[in-house]
Amino acid sequence: MASLNISNDLIDKVKYDPQGLVTAIIQDYRDGRVLMVAYMNRESLAKTIETGQTYFYSRSRQTLWHKGETSGHVQYVKDLEIDCDGDALLFQVEQVGVACHEGLRSCFRSPDLEAQEGDRKNQDLEAEKSIDSIDREKNK
Amino acid sequence: MASLNISNDLIDKVKYDPQGLVTAIIQDYRDGRVLMVAYMNRESLAKTIETGQTYFYSRSRQTLWHKGETSGHVQYVKDLEIDCDGDALLFQVEQVGVACHEGLRSCFRSPDLEAQEGDRKNQDLEAEKSIDSIDREKNK
Repeated sequence: MASLNISNDLIDKVKYDPQGLVTAIIQDYRDGRVLMVAYMNRESLAKTIETGQTYFYSRSRQTLWHKGETSGHVQYVKDLEIDCDGDALLFQVEQVGVACHEGLRSCFRSPDLEAQEGDRKNQDLEAEKSIDSIDREKNK
Repeated sequence: MASLNISNDLIDKVKYDPQGLVTAIIQDYRDGRVLMVAYMNRESLAKTIETGQTYFYSRSRQTLWHKGETSGHVQYVKDLEIDCDGDALLFQVEQVGVACHEGLRSCFRSPDLEAQEGDRKNQDLEAEKSIDSIDREKNK
C-alpha cells in the first residue's frame, strides 16, 4: 500500500467537530461524480494518509471502518483538498467496484428515483407475495 | 424566483441530525467542481425548494442564511439528489461569481496550497512590516 504524498501536518490542521469528526466528501477522480459522504476522526485520517485508501469512522458502529474491507470495493485516494474553514475534506478517488452498499455506483440518487425505487421494492414485494400465493396454490 | 420541481415530501424524508441539520454538498453543474459544503435545516431546505436558490443554516450565527444575499453570489439550483441513508444532499448549481468568501471559486484547496497561502500571507505581513519601517524611517 502506498502512502499519500500529504504531510501529517494536515491531521492537526483539520478542525474536528465536538465528536472529533470531519466531513469527508468522496468524488470519482475520473468524471467528478460525487460517490458518498462519510466522516473521519484523527485516526481514520491518519490511516488514509498512511495507506492511500479511505478509512472512515462509523458513527453508528463507533469504530474505524476501512471502506471496501469486506466487499473489496476500496477507494484509492488520488488527491485531497481541505476547505477554507478546515472542517471538510474532499477526496478524489479511484473507486473499485461501487461506492454504495446498495450496489449502485453512487450513494446519491434523485428523490424521485428514490420514490420510484420505493415503488419498485413494493412491487417486488407484491410480486413475491403473488409467487408465494401461486406456490401455495401449487402445494395444496 | 422559480421554485424547484421537487416535491415537498423530500423535506420530511431527510434524516436530520440531533441539531436538526443535514449536510449539503454544492457542486458546479457545468464541470462537477465541488464548491462548498454547508448545512440546512428544514426551513432552509424549504426555502431552497421554494425559491430555487440555496439557503443554509449558519451554525456559527444560528440563523437562516441566503447564500449570496450580500455578495450577489447566489446559487441557482439545477438538480438535487439525496443519499441512500437520507442524511446528505447533493446540489448541482449555477454559481454566480464565486462560492468562497475568500474570493476563490471553490472553498476547497490543496493542503499544500493552503500552507503556501499561509507562507504568502506571512511574507505579505513581513513586506508590510518592511514598508512600515521604511515609512517610519522616511518620517523621522
